[in-house]
Amino acid sequence: MMKYPSTVRLLGQSHSLLNQFMAEIRDVEIQQDSLRFRYNLERIGEIFAYEISKELAFSEKEVTTSLGIANVPVLTNYPVLATILRAGLPFHQGFLKFFDHASNAFVSAYRMAHKDGTFSMSVEYASSTALDGKVLIICDTMMASGSSMLHVYKELTARGNPSHVHIAAILSSMEAVNHLKKSIPKKNVTIWLGAIDEELTAQLFLVPGLGDAGDLAFGEKN
Amino acid sequence: MMKYPSTVRLLGQSHSLLNQFMAEIRDVEIQQDSLRFRYNLERIGEIFAYEISKELAFSEKEVTTSLGIANVPVLTNYPVLATILRAGLPFHQGFLKFFDHASNAFVSAYRMAHKDGTFSMSVEYASSTALDGKVLIICDTMMASGSSMLHVYKELTARGNPSHVHIAAILSSMEAVNHLKKSIPKKNVTIWLGAIDEELTAQLFLVPGLGDAGDLAFGEKN
Amino acid sequence: MMKYPSTVRLLGQSHSLLNQFMAEIRDVEIQQDSLRFRYNLERIGEIFAYEISKELAFSEKEVTTSLGIANVPVLTNYPVLATILRAGLPFHQGFLKFFDHASNAFVSAYRMAHKDGTFSMSVEYASSTALDGKVLIICDTMMASGSSMLHVYKELTARGNPSHVHIAAILSSMEAVNHLKKSIPKKNVTIWLGAIDEELTAQLFLVPGLGDAGDLAFGEKN
Amino acid sequence: MMKYPSTVRLLGQSHSLLNQFMAEIRDVEIQQDSLRFRYNLERIGEIFAYEISKELAFSEKEVTTSLGIANVPVLTNYPVLATILRAGLPFHQGFLKFFDHASNAFVSAYRMAHKDGTFSMSVEYASSTALDGKVLIICDTMMASGSSMLHVYKELTARGNPSHVHIAAILSSMEAVNHLKKSIPKKNVTIWLGAIDEELTAQLFLVPGLGDAGDLAFGEKN
Repeated sequence: MMKYPSTVRLLGQSHSLLNQFMAEIRDVEIQQDSLRFRYNLERIGEIFAYEISKELAFSEKEVTTSLGIANVPVLTNYPVLATILRAGLPFHQGFLKFFDHASNAFVSAYRMAHKDGTFSMSVEYASSTALDGKVLIICDTMMASGSSMLHVYKELTARGNPSHVHIAAILSSMEAVNHLKKSIPKKNVTIWLGAIDEELTAQLFLVPGLGDAGDLAFGEKN
Repeated sequence: MMKYPSTVRLLGQSHSLLNQFMAEIRDVEIQQDSLRFRYNLERIGEIFAYEISKELAFSEKEVTTSLGIANVPVLTNYPVLATILRAGLPFHQGFLKFFDHASNAFVSAYRMAHKDGTFSMSVEYASSTALDGKVLIICDTMMASGSSMLHVYKELTARGNPSHVHIAAILSSMEAVNHLKKSIPKKNVTIWLGAIDEELTAQLFLVPGLGDAGDLAFGEKN
Repeated sequence: MMKYPSTVRLLGQSHSLLNQFMAEIRDVEIQQDSLRFRYNLERIGEIFAYEISKELAFSEKEVTTSLGIANVPVLTNYPVLATILRAGLPFHQGFLKFFDHASNAFVSAYRMAHKDGTFSMSVEYASSTALDGKVLIICDTMMASGSSMLHVYKELTARGNPSHVHIAAILSSMEAVNHLKKSIPKKNVTIWLGAIDEELTAQLFLVPGLGDAGDLAFGEKN
Repeated sequence: MMKYPSTVRLLGQSHSLLNQFMAEIRDVEIQQDSLRFRYNLERIGEIFAYEISKELAFSEKEVTTSLGIANVPVLTNYPVLATILRAGLPFHQGFLKFFDHASNAFVSAYRMAHKDGTFSMSVEYASSTALDGKVLIICDTMMASGSSMLHVYKELTARGNPSHVHIAAILSSMEAVNHLKKSIPKKNVTIWLGAIDEELTAQLFLVPGLGDAGDLAFGEKN
């Protein structure tokens, strides 16, 4: 078993339904059913939300039942759920189904190609709730180079000062993990992944990967 | 009963569960539950999708059952589902639950205030599938002045040439309807509304309306 | 266009997404995906609920919005939703998603074969909320001979006196419709159908039909 | 931290969204919204399904992606999902949303009061898929005395010989756990609970509990 940095949680490393759902979104036949593809992304989002919730703060609350008083732990604060357009939407939908009282942020990141062959990222659209002191979860289906995620991380943390940031991606390259870990603080950031794929092509595709998550969920872009 | 132009369908004019769900999203108490608020927007999206589907083209298809052959009408082509960020997302989600094989477009429209007190619209983000020859449905929760909808209509029809455009909004002002009807072709456009509210304030709020649909669904913007 | 008795509403007679979903549940390939099969039954249940709601009583209500008062029609009373185990459960689930405040009834009907080759029906399990003065909707996926539906109708109306009964089935034989119409009062009963299939076999299978809805939704019975 | 027998998993013992959802179903105010009540039971069912899946058998499978081959672990066999009518239905619905390829069983258990003040259980309705060699999950919202669950366990294991049985209940008394452990084999049975409530009244209500789960989900019985 490979050793990952302490702030990386690889949820697919042990067996569970998460692996079943990841197998289905990778499968070139099964992914033709876009309803099932989106539904699998949602279910995976629910599982990530649940696993991340195990590391959030809970407080005892006295709940009045019809027959007495129950002392039950409830979330001290709801996290803010951010995602990256458009591919992240169904994964985010799963997070929101479990963290249904959460506020949200939506960001689009655009990769610009320069004449010299290099790329840079810019943010076109960003809509966010206040982030100061909040736990922020940024979720996206895949991290290839990690540039979009890093750019969105920077955009959002420039707008506010969250107490902790959870970065969540279903599939990632090791390059993306290393890129992120170099560029973001060690403290107060946790990276949650479903699986780490072996190869990142020059065209920034994960292999074996699953193809283009946005196209599979919402149709090919013009 | 008020008379509307022939290309406007006012779905809330006759009684149905649509009115029940619209009552709930307007209600200042009930809308505090953001899960129910989003769910109501989804259910309303499903109802709009179903009503719009009655005007789409269907073709007979021979379907093989386990016991024989059934001749059943199926959609000749799936429409493209477009929405406006971020408030339109849960309404769009309802459309997508019913038109689950559809391709999609997401657009963000931004209102810029000028020094002279006027406004102009610009598009920040637009991601669309091919539109030529397609039936296009553009859905947004509310139309106040109608400027966002008109701007998105122009942006999308500049990118392709759909055979028909259905514009769908749950609540609208009469001003928005008139604004749209002046600015878009009479042919090949149908406007679908849940209810037309009496008043449009100078700050572009519908009254009685429901408040800010984006904030209620996703949390207050920073 | 065939003429049906005034108390029968054949929803699939005009084109809509209902026909699309009915095509999918009939299709021997598509129905292999039991998640999609159940989901289609739910969506059909939502459509039936919506269409039936157009004939229910609504009352104006003053709803306080954040900006004013809206006079909106809401359901005067929620119907009671009854279904027949186990095949009716996903169809019922769709009704409940739209009539989410409704109370419910669950009944199982058992066909007993006698030595002389005849059959009789008996109820094994019945759990119902109070029915007096309520609008009752009894939904089941299919009506072959109509005996189960008739038996459940009698069981429930023996337990209370609903003001109106809506009987809803996605697929039915003409024999079942005639059987019901002979045996239940003309007044205060409406029959809602998706499609009427041509043939009813001696083994009580609809042709072309869709096979065994319970097995397709929940797995073959032992 | 209390020590439970090795075959009992108390999922609410550590903090997670499960506790949040359990707080909501107990809360006498929040549970008035029956849609949210049923939805919470479903979400809890999904969490139980996910946690139980961690103890199921997985096999490596070669999945063909659009870009290569992924070796991914998938469920070796789907479990059979059994529930007890009617209160267990929404909890079961959550299991089925995660184990969507599973076959199912539905059982109703009836408590008969005798003249001498004692009770006995009988099964009215049981519909089950084949169980031999299968992993069987029996889920019910609550276990008060544990008699219904034990009766259904006996009914189902008389019909087939599952390789393992997982018994799942959101709330339970310690009496029910002890009753089950005395009456069922130590081997091949695992009990999964959300919380163990302190008190079981003479009328077999859990305290603090949540009231009658069936009534809250589906309306008061007549």
